[in-house]
Amino acid sequence: MTELNALTVAAAADAIRRGDITSEALVSACLDRIAAREAEIGAWAHLDPEQALHDARESDAVRRSGRGTGPLHGVPIGIKDIVDVAGRPCEHGSPLFDGRRALHDAAVVTSLRNAGAVILGKTVTTELALLTPARTRNPLAPGHSPGGSSAGSAAAVADLMVPAALGTQTAGSVLRPASYCGIVGFKPTFGLVPRSGILMQSHTLDTVGVLARTVEDAALIVDAIAAQDPSDPASYARSQPGLHATAVQEPPIAPLFAVVRTPAWDKEAHPVMREAFDELVAALGDRATVLDLVSAGDAIEAQRVIQLAENAAYYGPLLERAPALVSPGLTKRLEAGLALDARTYVDAIRARAPLYEVIDELTTNFSAILTLAAPGPAPRLDEGITGSPVFNGLWTYYGGPCVSIPVMEADGLPLGVQLVGSRGDDGRLLRSARWLSRHIAGLAA
Amino acid sequence: MTELNALTVAAAADAIRRGDITSEALVSACLDRIAAREAEIGAWAHLDPEQALHDARESDAVRRSGRGTGPLHGVPIGIKDIVDVAGRPCEHGSPLFDGRRALHDAAVVTSLRNAGAVILGKTVTTELALLTPARTRNPLAPGHSPGGSSAGSAAAVADLMVPAALGTQTAGSVLRPASYCGIVGFKPTFGLVPRSGILMQSHTLDTVGVLARTVEDAALIVDAIAAQDPSDPASYARSQPGLHATAVQEPPIAPLFAVVRTPAWDKEAHPVMREAFDELVAALGDRATVLDLVSAGDAIEAQRVIQLAENAAYYGPLLERAPALVSPGLTKRLEAGLALDARTYVDAIRARAPLYEVIDELTTNFSAILTLAAPGPAPRLDEGITGSPVFNGLWTYYGGPCVSIPVMEADGLPLGVQLVGSRGDDGRLLRSARWLSRHIAGLAA
Repeated sequence: MTELNALTVAAAADAIRRGDITSEALVSACLDRIAAREAEIGAWAHLDPEQALHDARESDAVRRSGRGTGPLHGVPIGIKDIVDVAGRPCEHGSPLFDGRRALHDAAVVTSLRNAGAVILGKTVTTELALLTPARTRNPLAPGHSPGGSSAGSAAAVADLMVPAALGTQTAGSVLRPASYCGIVGFKPTFGLVPRSGILMQSHTLDTVGVLARTVEDAALIVDAIAAQDPSDPASYARSQPGLHATAVQEPPIAPLFAVVRTPAWDKEAHPVMREAFDELVAALGDRATVLDLVSAGDAIEAQRVIQLAENAAYYGPLLERAPALVSPGLTKRLEAGLALDARTYVDAIRARAPLYEVIDELTTNFSAILTLAAPGPAPRLDEGITGSPVFNGLWTYYGGPCVSIPVMEADGLPLGVQLVGSRGDDGRLLRSARWLSRHIAGLAA
Repeated sequence: MTELNALTVAAAADAIRRGDITSEALVSACLDRIAAREAEIGAWAHLDPEQALHDARESDAVRRSGRGTGPLHGVPIGIKDIVDVAGRPCEHGSPLFDGRRALHDAAVVTSLRNAGAVILGKTVTTELALLTPARTRNPLAPGHSPGGSSAGSAAAVADLMVPAALGTQTAGSVLRPASYCGIVGFKPTFGLVPRSGILMQSHTLDTVGVLARTVEDAALIVDAIAAQDPSDPASYARSQPGLHATAVQEPPIAPLFAVVRTPAWDKEAHPVMREAFDELVAALGDRATVLDLVSAGDAIEAQRVIQLAENAAYYGPLLERAPALVSPGLTKRLEAGLALDARTYVDAIRARAPLYEVIDELTTNFSAILTLAAPGPAPRLDEGITGSPVFNGLWTYYGGPCVSIPVMEADGLPLGVQLVGSRGDDGRLLRSARWLSRHIAGLAA
């Protein structure tokens, strides 16, 4: 039998529902794995094993009492350390917030609890969810970065410490670490998940996402946290079947993919990534159509400008208050943002509507856009970087759902591929991603 | 009997529906009035009497045939010259667009036609719908400005040339001219009316509005043009009774008004306006509660920053292309916008969410906010200005529905009062405004 800590969210929830395992046993297995591996991996910013076991036992008691159980009943989840969990530390990966404890649960944490999940602990984030590396190491590729900014969430899930964890993405902070760590990273449609109670760095781009080991698990988690929340004006009401219900269907016809390499391909894509990606496209045969998307270059730049400007607006006051506590890399970034003029920013915002028209057409007429999830394999730790989000930022700017699935590898390092779907049609994207995972597994077998 | 050109929209539509008058007779009466008065008033940028009469005769033929008629069947409407009408000139009040003819109807023009309205002609706008005065004169106050930027729409309606006209507002371009010209100006909730096919100067603020002679007429027009339009991402679907149905109800209880003078009162409000407004508030007795709204000052500044920055983004390219064709006043304004930094702009955008909380509370707990529609009476023409939107901009920034009603006067010059309502609850605001109009008429009688 699979070790309990290696169970997927779906399998664990089923086993708990049937009474085959207890939440306490599952949480214990995760805590044991963490105890054995955390010194090497460094995925957790804060862990309170007693509290997690207590919550697991509560959830077992609820189940035994015959009261209703939620879809994630008893399943432990990791929470990126920029998401507030009431009473727990939430330090945003920065000495500026040393000792900060959250007063309230973020909306997504409340939703997870309502679905029955057990909050296992807080996972390491890079400094203020930006590019300065954290201490976390890549469990699948010793000596390599797990990526960022959702570094701890990706590493913990990849290392079987927890079945799933929340991350956030402003450029590529969910998809890129997923690619580097050989797991699934899912960024839903912008606005599907409310951001109340989460550190904001860009109201236009910040999106809550999930790191998990299967597409199905990512769907289950987002079903639990999707909601309209009046305190996040970007959030919207949805009235449609859950993502999971759609994701696990067989597609009515085998998916068709629009292959978009983007203008960053020539300069930024690593040779091994190019080779692996082209092989994948070739293997898909007439299911994949290679397209030249000229406007993608403008979108890459627009996302960069918006993130820089909004970072400066949100974090500028921190830099003014305590410059010594801001890393040199982030200082430089904020200074670049503070130097931007308003017109450049407004133009970048304005460029979104015409992009919608172009991309919506693709994501409607094809099952998904197929592109890179990262420029290449995880960078070495001694490079001192978390890798570039250049293949992610434009899709975050577009706002449609994006998922990275681990389908390739080079020299033992995992390589993800990214699928991008229609805004608001997250279930269909995940269904196509699940099809692709299984299709490729079939090819390899 | 009232001259046909003096009929309200509601009365004209009823008379046409009953067959008491024809659209042709009504349009002829309007054209006669224009012929007699236009040289003095200068309200029309483009008029094609033959086309208007042709459309009126078509609409009479439809009615006679027994086919269904829309709520505005046969009623002539004026259209501000930044709103496209297919095949007609649309020159945006600027020599940069001399000779420009629109290819397509703006979404609102299509909606008006669907409701049966006859497009009478294009009304004068100030240069690019900003602050440089146009040639239009105030019909109620000879030698005075009609305000701007919807100068021709306000003057034409006030002078009985047309029963209603479309305007647009980014700061105070509908409410202020209404106040100066002694008519009703209505700016609906931001997003209720789509802006496709209309010159954009600020995607965050631009709102289509109506100049009319009664609150009821304003409601009828907005009912016809409110729509979600995928090409204007700010527009939203509404599922609620029409504004008109609500506006003409008796309020269940006599309205309660939250009086907000705003921080601009001391420096910007004209003494005669202050006196008239305070008299009105006194006459309302315990129906009016004077409140101190501290955050209004920040909102005035935030609106100013956003409009300057977005003006620079939208109109900056025009200044670069043909500086000689841009007025000195507008040039100065665009240069100020181009000098703004991105952080200041982003901060102004961010200030909106906390303002929502404060104002939503007021507009929910009171029937409406009661405030000034303009700093004072219309400025004299020799001042070379269209007046200040300082009492309007913050409410446009807030985004709720705003209506100016002509309830006061000083030295023969009309003075409007402004009511501001809950975002999305336009009907309730108009119902309160109608109550106030009648209540004051009763006091005066």
